[in-house]
Amino acid sequence: MGALRLPCLTSIFAVSSASLFPRCRNNHLNVRKLSSTAKVEVAPVQEQAITPHSQDFNAWYLDVISMAELADYGPVRGTMVIRPYGYAIWEAIQDYLNIKFKETGHSNMYFPQFIPYSFIEKEASHVEGFSPELALVTVGGGKELEEKLVVRPTSETIVNHMFTQWIQSYRDLPLMINQWANVTRWEMRTKPFIRTLEFLWQEGHTAHATSEEAEREAMQMIDVYTKFAYEQAAIPVIPGRKSRVETFAGADRTYTIEAMMGDRKALQAGTSHNLGQNFSRAFGTQFADENGQRQHVWQTSWAISTRFVGGIIMTHGDDAGLMLPPRLASIQVVIVPIWKKANEKDEVLDAALSVKDVLHTAGIKVKLDDSDQRTPGWKFNFWEMKGVPLRIEIGPHDVSSRSVVISRRDIPGKPGKVFGISMEDPVLVPYVKEKLNEIQSSLLDKAIAFRDSNIVDVSSYDELKEVISQAKWARGPWVGSDEDELKVKEETGATIRCFPFDQPQGPKTCLMTGSPAEEVAIFAKSY
Amino acid sequence: MGALRLPCLTSIFAVSSASLFPRCRNNHLNVRKLSSTAKVEVAPVQEQAITPHSQDFNAWYLDVISMAELADYGPVRGTMVIRPYGYAIWEAIQDYLNIKFKETGHSNMYFPQFIPYSFIEKEASHVEGFSPELALVTVGGGKELEEKLVVRPTSETIVNHMFTQWIQSYRDLPLMINQWANVTRWEMRTKPFIRTLEFLWQEGHTAHATSEEAEREAMQMIDVYTKFAYEQAAIPVIPGRKSRVETFAGADRTYTIEAMMGDRKALQAGTSHNLGQNFSRAFGTQFADENGQRQHVWQTSWAISTRFVGGIIMTHGDDAGLMLPPRLASIQVVIVPIWKKANEKDEVLDAALSVKDVLHTAGIKVKLDDSDQRTPGWKFNFWEMKGVPLRIEIGPHDVSSRSVVISRRDIPGKPGKVFGISMEDPVLVPYVKEKLNEIQSSLLDKAIAFRDSNIVDVSSYDELKEVISQAKWARGPWVGSDEDELKVKEETGATIRCFPFDQPQGPKTCLMTGSPAEEVAIFAKSY
Repeated sequence: MGALRLPCLTSIFAVSSASLFPRCRNNHLNVRKLSSTAKVEVAPVQEQAITPHSQDFNAWYLDVISMAELADYGPVRGTMVIRPYGYAIWEAIQDYLNIKFKETGHSNMYFPQFIPYSFIEKEASHVEGFSPELALVTVGGGKELEEKLVVRPTSETIVNHMFTQWIQSYRDLPLMINQWANVTRWEMRTKPFIRTLEFLWQEGHTAHATSEEAEREAMQMIDVYTKFAYEQAAIPVIPGRKSRVETFAGADRTYTIEAMMGDRKALQAGTSHNLGQNFSRAFGTQFADENGQRQHVWQTSWAISTRFVGGIIMTHGDDAGLMLPPRLASIQVVIVPIWKKANEKDEVLDAALSVKDVLHTAGIKVKLDDSDQRTPGWKFNFWEMKGVPLRIEIGPHDVSSRSVVISRRDIPGKPGKVFGISMEDPVLVPYVKEKLNEIQSSLLDKAIAFRDSNIVDVSSYDELKEVISQAKWARGPWVGSDEDELKVKEETGATIRCFPFDQPQGPKTCLMTGSPAEEVAIFAKSY
Repeated sequence: MGALRLPCLTSIFAVSSASLFPRCRNNHLNVRKLSSTAKVEVAPVQEQAITPHSQDFNAWYLDVISMAELADYGPVRGTMVIRPYGYAIWEAIQDYLNIKFKETGHSNMYFPQFIPYSFIEKEASHVEGFSPELALVTVGGGKELEEKLVVRPTSETIVNHMFTQWIQSYRDLPLMINQWANVTRWEMRTKPFIRTLEFLWQEGHTAHATSEEAEREAMQMIDVYTKFAYEQAAIPVIPGRKSRVETFAGADRTYTIEAMMGDRKALQAGTSHNLGQNFSRAFGTQFADENGQRQHVWQTSWAISTRFVGGIIMTHGDDAGLMLPPRLASIQVVIVPIWKKANEKDEVLDAALSVKDVLHTAGIKVKLDDSDQRTPGWKFNFWEMKGVPLRIEIGPHDVSSRSVVISRRDIPGKPGKVFGISMEDPVLVPYVKEKLNEIQSSLLDKAIAFRDSNIVDVSSYDELKEVISQAKWARGPWVGSDEDELKVKEETGATIRCFPFDQPQGPKTCLMTGSPAEEVAIFAKSY
């Protein structure tokens, strides 16, 4: 087992410099859960500082994941254990999307994860895209299997195998389903949440009678994702269409939401594919139309994964650690009671408990950190590092004046701190709700400003190269060939993230070829 | 692909006679989703009758699963596709238990499904129990792996690997987590929901500082399961302790809830294990106690799976098909509008829609079947087969009298039908809610009566054999050895299902050995 217990996240998800190794050793020894009964002193978390955001973004990211206890590495290289505080973010994502999927007419179901190898080979571009990263089960119940099984990297093939049996006539359409599942892709370069060997996702699969209906569905779902990103995660994604080169293996068209991370790299945060008839032809998924003619169905698939959690961390986090948008935070408000003398403790804790009850009853997710083990200062840092949007402090003076001090996570120091807010229900509850809404909006506004100040319009390949070399996003007219696109990737490291739906008006000239162009594309380096 | 498209569930989950094959061919062609726009006639579902319950219980079970569209077979032998109507039952189970787990202090998280083979070998009885049914990944990303990976059959080993890193001192305890996940066991004899190669479950894992605390936790969780079974699923399970022979591979004690199915076979419907220090010793999971002494943690694990859905089907179903307890039904009330003349249709549909809205607003899960394609009689049979607890009929006469006809699924024919219930909100809503509660109680009462009339107290092995040969459960005092227990299994096909918590008073004499016994055990054939 010794060989498997690698020293820290940085080493297993190796991307950055070797100098990180000593720093993160024993991280998990120092950031401990707080307990109300403990007596022994523990090394303060401050000793284990997070690498500054600006100094080394990757090290910062791994530090935040480790110290905020979002995830840990699994024993198998490239796998990840999602810890409760990180999983709670995924649950919040699930809760929102699950309702939206049902509202838009989809039912949840579950397909087996083992897919006969022969299925993967049926759709030509699909097998080309996925075969390098498959995990294969070759032994079951002690015996070598006759046909090796693929651990699903995605489910289009098995879905179509079943759809072929369930769909007979146009009356069976549309067929609109979703599943929440784990998927496996044998990635060589992994990074927690962003790219792991196994990850969690939802995958929607639909079948329609017409091409137009499938297109409408694919667009509807990218719209659901866009709204989710803006309204819940406060991430101002750019929705658009992927280039041919970047289109999903087996799709006619892929729509995407692209998010700008704190290091200005792009993150593909969700995709929706118009699969056309590619899988229905490969699997013979046909229906009898109203005239009794057999036709192949038109399909879509769409997915958001635990990668999105990484996107939240890398959009909003700062040098102090994680910063969670209130709508996805499992703890929206933390209460830190402050006392010095023993005789102050009871009245302060009583007041803190009553504030907790008031907020809890109002539907606010609140935690009281009443541990004896840590100083208030330590707790302030700890819960800031954990990204809790609002902190309420209650000391002996506050108890006498029946008021509290409220600090915003998104505005550091004194400017984010307000004194003397009444702890009475009719004042406190609306105040806290308003502040949470303000933080939610403010995170989005800040992310929009950051995004917009880092997208530069370019009209030539030289300009594009210059912008990419500054680690920004370049936006310019494009009708280049696949080869042109691959050349950009090779020479600059940037890819076409999307042709955004939101297109500037007026005539355009391709930045690469000089030909008239219909659309601008966004180029960026990406995760 | 042809070879994989087996004709019906009966063939792939082969348990019963070959005579089932022709009957279930093309099942999925006949039970179609209803559509409100279709014009073409479809073969009536009645042609495809369900095998009577009493004639062949297994065929009945497979017919119900197929015709009610609960599940279908996957392309890999022994795997199952859980269809939306079946998955909705699992979602209802999840919704309830997820809240209970959190109320009892557990957090959700997620562990990777790939476990290094060496982990499985660490706990001696664990490897013995699980190695015959493992699926192994031997190839990843096109390369033969150095160490083969187990696709989790359960997660104790990987959980302990992580717990060892997270737990340092008593302040880190108790550590109480749960995950919702898929697991794989290479079963040879499979049956949808009951025993499949891959299934869905939740697995709770906890670590404690003392043996007593672990025991309390194991008991607490079997109690959560028992309450769930009684109150939500209307299944009067018998909670108790497993015999040594039947204890989980790696546990000190296994608690179980045992349910009696319609054929009087027992179903182990949920288990909770006191793992003692078996895994903590194997994985070195230690904590420093208050005196700074290193000790191994005391652990539990507990699980309920999609098998429970099979238990619901086999507890309540009858010759007409599925019967769902209202609290777990995704459709609690179906409205069937009835009209003959075209001029009646609009007013009937208007009334049906308004009744639907009233019930929906009151939080009742209601469906309006307004299809033109089927007769009311067909719809009655169809929704009875799907197990919907209540049916509301609305015809032209009802519209004039502003009333509806209500039929209970659990009371067939006229005795279950009530005419002239006002369709006004203040009357209808409480009436429907009351009826749903009555059905919920009535299903439980019926199942209790069935269970109790099929458990026979025995005082000798001859009596036990007689009772088991009548396909009943035998209850008798037991202090037999493991060998005695295995002899009973060999000679009668029955196993000790549990030593029930609810024990009769007074002195007892072991039915097998004649020695004084402390407890009675329940013997039965089981799934």
